[in-house]
Amino acid sequence: MDWESFYDTHPSPSTHEPTICEVENFVCSHENEKIVFVTSGGTTVPIEHNTVRFVDNFSVGTRGSASAEYFLQCGYCVIFLYRSNSLEPFVRHFNNSLLDKFEIVDNKSIQMKQSEFDTLYPVLKKFKDAKEANRLLSISFTTLIEYMWLVRGCCMLLDTKYCMLYFAAAVSDFYIPPSEMKEHKHQSNDGPPLIALRLVPKVLPAVTHIWSPNAYIISFKLETDAEILLEKCKSALAKYKHQLVIGNLLSTRKHNVKLVSRDGIEDITLSTADSETGLEIEYLIVTNLEAKHDAYIKSKQ
Amino acid sequence: MDWESFYDTHPSPSTHEPTICEVENFVCSHENEKIVFVTSGGTTVPIEHNTVRFVDNFSVGTRGSASAEYFLQCGYCVIFLYRSNSLEPFVRHFNNSLLDKFEIVDNKSIQMKQSEFDTLYPVLKKFKDAKEANRLLSISFTTLIEYMWLVRGCCMLLDTKYCMLYFAAAVSDFYIPPSEMKEHKHQSNDGPPLIALRLVPKVLPAVTHIWSPNAYIISFKLETDAEILLEKCKSALAKYKHQLVIGNLLSTRKHNVKLVSRDGIEDITLSTADSETGLEIEYLIVTNLEAKHDAYIKSKQ
Repeated sequence: MDWESFYDTHPSPSTHEPTICEVENFVCSHENEKIVFVTSGGTTVPIEHNTVRFVDNFSVGTRGSASAEYFLQCGYCVIFLYRSNSLEPFVRHFNNSLLDKFEIVDNKSIQMKQSEFDTLYPVLKKFKDAKEANRLLSISFTTLIEYMWLVRGCCMLLDTKYCMLYFAAAVSDFYIPPSEMKEHKHQSNDGPPLIALRLVPKVLPAVTHIWSPNAYIISFKLETDAEILLEKCKSALAKYKHQLVIGNLLSTRKHNVKLVSRDGIEDITLSTADSETGLEIEYLIVTNLEAKHDAYIKSKQ
Repeated sequence: MDWESFYDTHPSPSTHEPTICEVENFVCSHENEKIVFVTSGGTTVPIEHNTVRFVDNFSVGTRGSASAEYFLQCGYCVIFLYRSNSLEPFVRHFNNSLLDKFEIVDNKSIQMKQSEFDTLYPVLKKFKDAKEANRLLSISFTTLIEYMWLVRGCCMLLDTKYCMLYFAAAVSDFYIPPSEMKEHKHQSNDGPPLIALRLVPKVLPAVTHIWSPNAYIISFKLETDAEILLEKCKSALAKYKHQLVIGNLLSTRKHNVKLVSRDGIEDITLSTADSETGLEIEYLIVTNLEAKHDAYIKSKQ
């Protein structure tokens, strides 16, 4: 199935239009500024109509949420499309043992403990500044079909050289068409279900050729087998003809990625020493991409 | 496959022993107090060894996390076994728009906004009190196999009439044995994968007859089809011979449940009016169960 028939057979969810309006307002208020569209987290593929079970992709959304923070730091406006319940920029620093970070003072106020303040103050400050300046728009989705519609809607609004599309979400390659889903929960005394999945059509050809041919477009390849990673990156680049593929292995993704472009392969490695200072590889990725995007904008003048 | 061969063929994860030690310490420090063991959230079934994809169960953990709060309120000590990333007691009230709830005061402290304080102060207070008195032990898991081992370990430590076992987690009925998992990510150009799932053995027979025959045991049935719900509850009760099955439908689970015991069927309904005051059905469930458990303890004297 190609992407056109996918959209023909799966109508947009009812929440779609109002969300795209929000995106449109955001884009309009940042004309000629650099905007990055970051997708993040996994996608959920329901197995039954009344969903009790689903097939999911491994992704807590670290890559996307960390990158969004650094893009803001580099002066980008950020549209952050994330799977609900996956990590969000800035918020992610508060998640662990959240309530232990706070204390009740004199039974009349709730304050962050002083021991946490030095680390979390700059995080909260950046978040508040970004929100106040209307430079961060977060949009959540759950299912694959919601994701597919939001990507289409957003990409069509982001077709200029000032826009970067950064597809960090782990999108399911497979899904079950609603027409073939069972109505009710599969009963265990019917024996285990045999789940026949369909291929999700690739939308990258539509993004690069139809929806946002003028944007700077980055896709990701996540593999578990080092042998095939680079080849898969190169073949994606050859097939979709966009600007960059970022290749990473599940086991080493937090300290090594490969940037594959028509100019060759660049290796980005976060050293153990740097990692111990709290530096994240996403900072290295984003600052590298910023330079590439600036050159791209210049080349189009 | 029965539960014995499941444990024989799937060795315990390396994190298992230290966690069970923690539970043991907790249980020892609350001898002759009422303890409830609450399981919550879904379970993850990996599809590949280097997990990129998995089959998951729908459950954000509202039932379990809300119930844990009300059990504490009723004087229980709570062991909360939850799927990581699902809702946690008390913490769940802070999750939405977390960073918007706080403000920076004079660039030198982070405080909860006054508008949020009245709602969240009692929540945080209850959390702090429970932690300080060591009455809440939270343990997280991710995969089905971790869950299976933790349930076994905990139940064996909770075999007295003062213990209530409250199995609210949505445990997968199906799994893929590690021996049959693919080593690497399924490639989309191999076509869609056909996933053959195995039945997960029921552990309730082991719980009721071997691990914790003296505890007060409650299991849940979640269905999407109202026609079969009560029959499934009754048949579970007949098969496992425990004290109570709580039946609920996916679509109405937040305002109606059915308590099915040997004494008959009780309907618990949360009225719209009550719901609007912020009352949750878990409060009604827990206070009902407390009375049943007290009667059970008395009957065993």
